[in-house]
Amino acid sequence: MKERAGGSGFPAGRGEILIEGVRHRGRTVDVYIDGEGRIAAIGREAGRRSGREAETRIDGRGQVLIHSLVNTHTHAAMTLMRGYADDMPLQEWLTTKIWPLEAHLTGEDIYWGTKLACLEMIRTGTLAFNDMYFFMEEAARAVGEMGLRATLAYGFIDLGDEGRREKEIRATERLVSVVKGMANPRIRPAVGPHAVYTVSPEGLRWCADFSREEGISIHTHLAETEQEVRDCVKMHGKRPVAHLDTCGCLTERTVAAHCCWLDRPECTLLAARGTSASHNPTSNMKLAVNRAMPYPWMKEAGVNVTLGTDGCASNNSLDMFGAMKDAALLQKFAWNNQTVLPAPEVLHMATEAGARALGIHAGRIEVGAPADLVLISLAKPQMTPLFSEESNLVYSAAGSAVDTVICDGRILMLHGVVPGEEEILSRASKAAAALVGRSVI
Amino acid sequence: MKERAGGSGFPAGRGEILIEGVRHRGRTVDVYIDGEGRIAAIGREAGRRSGREAETRIDGRGQVLIHSLVNTHTHAAMTLMRGYADDMPLQEWLTTKIWPLEAHLTGEDIYWGTKLACLEMIRTGTLAFNDMYFFMEEAARAVGEMGLRATLAYGFIDLGDEGRREKEIRATERLVSVVKGMANPRIRPAVGPHAVYTVSPEGLRWCADFSREEGISIHTHLAETEQEVRDCVKMHGKRPVAHLDTCGCLTERTVAAHCCWLDRPECTLLAARGTSASHNPTSNMKLAVNRAMPYPWMKEAGVNVTLGTDGCASNNSLDMFGAMKDAALLQKFAWNNQTVLPAPEVLHMATEAGARALGIHAGRIEVGAPADLVLISLAKPQMTPLFSEESNLVYSAAGSAVDTVICDGRILMLHGVVPGEEEILSRASKAAAALVGRSVI
Repeated sequence: MKERAGGSGFPAGRGEILIEGVRHRGRTVDVYIDGEGRIAAIGREAGRRSGREAETRIDGRGQVLIHSLVNTHTHAAMTLMRGYADDMPLQEWLTTKIWPLEAHLTGEDIYWGTKLACLEMIRTGTLAFNDMYFFMEEAARAVGEMGLRATLAYGFIDLGDEGRREKEIRATERLVSVVKGMANPRIRPAVGPHAVYTVSPEGLRWCADFSREEGISIHTHLAETEQEVRDCVKMHGKRPVAHLDTCGCLTERTVAAHCCWLDRPECTLLAARGTSASHNPTSNMKLAVNRAMPYPWMKEAGVNVTLGTDGCASNNSLDMFGAMKDAALLQKFAWNNQTVLPAPEVLHMATEAGARALGIHAGRIEVGAPADLVLISLAKPQMTPLFSEESNLVYSAAGSAVDTVICDGRILMLHGVVPGEEEILSRASKAAAALVGRSVI
Repeated sequence: MKERAGGSGFPAGRGEILIEGVRHRGRTVDVYIDGEGRIAAIGREAGRRSGREAETRIDGRGQVLIHSLVNTHTHAAMTLMRGYADDMPLQEWLTTKIWPLEAHLTGEDIYWGTKLACLEMIRTGTLAFNDMYFFMEEAARAVGEMGLRATLAYGFIDLGDEGRREKEIRATERLVSVVKGMANPRIRPAVGPHAVYTVSPEGLRWCADFSREEGISIHTHLAETEQEVRDCVKMHGKRPVAHLDTCGCLTERTVAAHCCWLDRPECTLLAARGTSASHNPTSNMKLAVNRAMPYPWMKEAGVNVTLGTDGCASNNSLDMFGAMKDAALLQKFAWNNQTVLPAPEVLHMATEAGARALGIHAGRIEVGAPADLVLISLAKPQMTPLFSEESNLVYSAAGSAVDTVICDGRILMLHGVVPGEEEILSRASKAAAALVGRSVI
């Protein structure tokens, strides 16, 4: 057996793992993970077929196995602002609550806020996420330690000011250089032009060029509110999708969050450019954006639609199971149709489509794929009875049903235990309290 | 110390309980519960002040204490149909999936389905619920054993047929007699006229008269869909609220579920009659009823607005934390206003307003009140940081944060352990599979 860290019974690193007797797509299978973190065999007696003894064995009986969930839009360190201000008019909330806190954020805050976010994601089965915020070098350090996959973008905001743009360019270049220097295959840099209303056309063009040169993703907000669309037409003579396209930002490497206020031609253009959309139903309802992402049009056009939670200031949870249920509910309600966005499509959004958007891997459980796996306990009332894995996962499971997670072949949570949890909760709490102390005069 | 059942460390019945060092409304308090299941003292050192030794001590440090949640609309035994059929057009779903199963339900099914529902509710902090279904004597037996509070109604459906009406009257009378005969103060009977489109005016009038004579509640569905309103106006020349009123069904003892398609005068009439509304946001979105309950009008009129999950066929969860979040999200989205239904109002709906609707007690934690208490663990990422108990409870907690529950002075779950859970999961699973086996030819 593998050397174990401390007395916790927790495997210290990567090594062969055999998951025995787990339920997957209605069958009972074994899954063998090799020492490189890849799935080497799936099926009855995959362990025996491999002809060797696994260093770690996980009893998968009474569990269902799914691919890890992929959160394609969040601001991870905003966990520090969870519950700090809710139920307020949008502008007042931003100007009197959120922005004053953000003005006082430090790298240390980002580190502990991102660790708290990673802890919450691990506990709820999300092992890859698309992040945009500040002090992202500290986010990279946190993600590196926590063992998840992340695509990290600095939130580029020039407000049309050339001096500010130069600073944002330097900050973006620095982040990309730092992350590339880490040479951690789980962590990738991205360019993060915040939105068409906060970044000038020049800034957007620089982001597009730089992302192409570096071969990295673009992460942006798009068509979240009606105001954004109106202002964009007024300022640039075009709706936001066309404007982004003109500036070169609509690429196959782009993830556009929200996409609430799109018309049909905009859906078609996103599809034509191969740009992925991140649906954020919980945030959109909480912030009352007054329109649901037009999923039926997106689906018809062939857009790669993925799922995100948004940050904790506007959700207030990073549990993708909650986002999955909210997506299914909101789409049905908004389109007045019980059949829109059925459970299997929601799961596809939250796994394969998300993985494709971030270009990380197939997002499927198959031989040769990286082992990004989530085991969900069936011995729970909300998983009983089990007529449909998909329905229970989307409509009743909730993230708390997650028992064990494996990312890139490393066990990050084993039977509900995440090493170091207590310190993260304590340090993040203190960082949040101190942040408010510094910000409120 | 109290005698404990088996080797589980679980208190066998009622007895003095001292909860020490728990957080409640921003303070740290002790709570002393007397042998009659009532709160005898709250405050610093409530235990010492009582001058006696509690039989059971619960360490409340790192926990927040709230009143138990009250689910004012469900069909508990429909847990057996969880995930059996989803994402289908409403009529096809009812006629090809739900009704065929319901035609084959047995008393034994209701017993195990209700036990499963009670287990899920205990785990997620709901200790009182308003139930309407069939074979309710078996539901009463299940609730009696599980230790929750419930108001149980037989779903009265005469479809305008006199013979059928007579049968429904007998079934209703039988249930009321059986439940009264149990003499269990936690379990109350109610009259359950299903809806204006399934019960004749004669049936509604009988329900109104009988509920008045017996001094028991009325539980009905109201204005769930636009079709219901249209058909009611066509058949009875009145909108549903006025029609119910004409038939005597709008009383202070009435809980009307859904209330999506109300106009302003209907809200005013509900308020004038003292009738409670049960908001069911999750079900309303999943079944695409195309309108959210007009909460701002209800609030303005002074209606007692409560919260429900609906049954597991249309939700598919009984977690009231999910319903709380969905209510806050849906109302904001539907009214295009971030300030509608803030977290403290949601908590009020789910506790005090619910308790008032069911006439059970104050629904508040105060000296002299029955001890219906829920302890929620703060050592969770979703409860960190803790700027606002209300915000975290509504927007991020989820039912899985519930650690310990006490109903009427009896501990039903202690640190996540509910006695007998394994048998309930196993028996309910088997009952669900057998039900489908009998129904599908």
